[in-house]
Amino acid sequence: MATIVLKRTGAKMPQIGFGLWKVRIQRLIDVSGLTGMLPVTKTTCADTVYNALKEGYRLLDGAVITVTKRSREGLARAIKDGIVKREDVFVTSKLWNTFHAHDHAKAIAKKQLELWELTTLTFSSFTSPFRSSMSIPPTATRPSDNVPLQETWTAMEELVDEGLAKNIGLSNCQGSLILDVLRYARIEPQVLQVELHPYLSQEALVKFCKVHGIAITAYSSFGPQSYVELDGHKNAKSLLEHDVVSTIAKKNQKTTAQVLLRWALQQGIAVIPKSNNHHRLVQNLASADFTLTDADMQAISGLNINLRLNDPVDLDPRMGIFA
Amino acid sequence: MATIVLKRTGAKMPQIGFGLWKVRIQRLIDVSGLTGMLPVTKTTCADTVYNALKEGYRLLDGAVITVTKRSREGLARAIKDGIVKREDVFVTSKLWNTFHAHDHAKAIAKKQLELWELTTLTFSSFTSPFRSSMSIPPTATRPSDNVPLQETWTAMEELVDEGLAKNIGLSNCQGSLILDVLRYARIEPQVLQVELHPYLSQEALVKFCKVHGIAITAYSSFGPQSYVELDGHKNAKSLLEHDVVSTIAKKNQKTTAQVLLRWALQQGIAVIPKSNNHHRLVQNLASADFTLTDADMQAISGLNINLRLNDPVDLDPRMGIFA
Repeated sequence: MATIVLKRTGAKMPQIGFGLWKVRIQRLIDVSGLTGMLPVTKTTCADTVYNALKEGYRLLDGAVITVTKRSREGLARAIKDGIVKREDVFVTSKLWNTFHAHDHAKAIAKKQLELWELTTLTFSSFTSPFRSSMSIPPTATRPSDNVPLQETWTAMEELVDEGLAKNIGLSNCQGSLILDVLRYARIEPQVLQVELHPYLSQEALVKFCKVHGIAITAYSSFGPQSYVELDGHKNAKSLLEHDVVSTIAKKNQKTTAQVLLRWALQQGIAVIPKSNNHHRLVQNLASADFTLTDADMQAISGLNINLRLNDPVDLDPRMGIFA
Repeated sequence: MATIVLKRTGAKMPQIGFGLWKVRIQRLIDVSGLTGMLPVTKTTCADTVYNALKEGYRLLDGAVITVTKRSREGLARAIKDGIVKREDVFVTSKLWNTFHAHDHAKAIAKKQLELWELTTLTFSSFTSPFRSSMSIPPTATRPSDNVPLQETWTAMEELVDEGLAKNIGLSNCQGSLILDVLRYARIEPQVLQVELHPYLSQEALVKFCKVHGIAITAYSSFGPQSYVELDGHKNAKSLLEHDVVSTIAKKNQKTTAQVLLRWALQQGIAVIPKSNNHHRLVQNLASADFTLTDADMQAISGLNINLRLNDPVDLDPRMGIFA
């Protein structure tokens, strides 16, 4: 498995991870007196996680709204069966916007560890920097925490101090905000997780992170496909069926999904595809096993139209975190 | 003169201002032990400022590197001759990146007031949020201050408390960073000054600022033309000679410059064109006197290609404040 060496800790982050997002939010939990959201995952989730680990995945990418006991069951069983050692698996979580205040951040991180039945998250990052009184999703029972990101970052640094997280990073941030974090960070962000696919190639941000030694993890690698279920594909033509991608896939005897993942991997970007289909789960992993020509890379990059599918302004115009 | 009412103070900011930038940096000054840069302006600057005020301009937009004794002479003379009253003129300055630390920010603000021989700046904003050890321009004698923007903003709030600035705002910031400022601001930013022209229409940012009650001032309204002298026009076709703009200008019996300014004004955006040519200085002011049809507005907006001409990454790849 190809890895990305993280600048601060030297940890080797697997370049292909297994994404756990997109499960239904079905019930509320209480964390230290805060009502938050946690999903009940499909009961098949434990098996899916178990099989992903069995096939070679070593990074499980979750978030407050995606990591559940079901995922943990899969990991626990894989460790018990000797498929993986705990220390070989990157387990990731994120701080939802309702948990950005110092004490909330620490409480939810601990709750996550409890749910995972783990002592350490390999990675923790905060998510979209919204603003108070904006509830995401709009049905959430409490608004986002209205605190400067410095407060959240300080709490995350303490998670590292306390051994609860090995690495910390950012999600859904722009260059100017990352630069501000770098100005006050005692422990610098190691990774930035953002939406990134050929329709939103983010060349400037990729270049920027490289010079600052921040690894990038792309989410929604398949573009519109990831949003069809959520009715958020914005009528964009599927990348999985795009002529340019199909032609390159045929030439390489690969699937279009593999080509889309390879396009990111070859730029040194990590990916976290999710699949409930075992065959595709295995195929996604195999996207590391071939090389695209420079011309093919450029042809795919040429599809960029700055199409952002996951933009909170679509829910509330005040949340212009990408404006 | 059309104005924009500022949300916090109710002050009426003239929608067309006179920009003082693009003068040569020729000597260094010493401010409270800090070596900084201040330009020696062309000797004609005093007359230009005087004439701008005489023709009706009521906003003088400067910055640490553009406001000098020459500009002050023009303002002082216009007040003495009864052309304007001090209280009717918006005088703007900015904090250069070498003056973002709390004490530096306050020292340079006071130095600016001294240079202008004024007791109050109508507006003060901080400029591009770079990071330490990056000197802008590369020939600067000291690096930018490496402090979180919250420290700079606190200093600016104190300028308001002390009556040295009536309003404060931001420059060259993205949505996520503005949201962070809003989370800690005791005094919220009133205005955002950014590059904005038909090649970089910034629709998302304009919408974002509107919902947050932040006025926008566009700089480089003529696009590439503003960067020809600096060799930074990036081979873009001139907007002043663009067919779409020319056709609309002819139809309205206006100049292309007037159409470009009108396009911004009609969106509720303030502009700060600069001209050393008296005729054009008067023409620019007259861009408030006509209306573009919706179709013409859309045709001009359709020229957007996200072309950013003033991007510090062109000087140093670490400075991705727009990534």
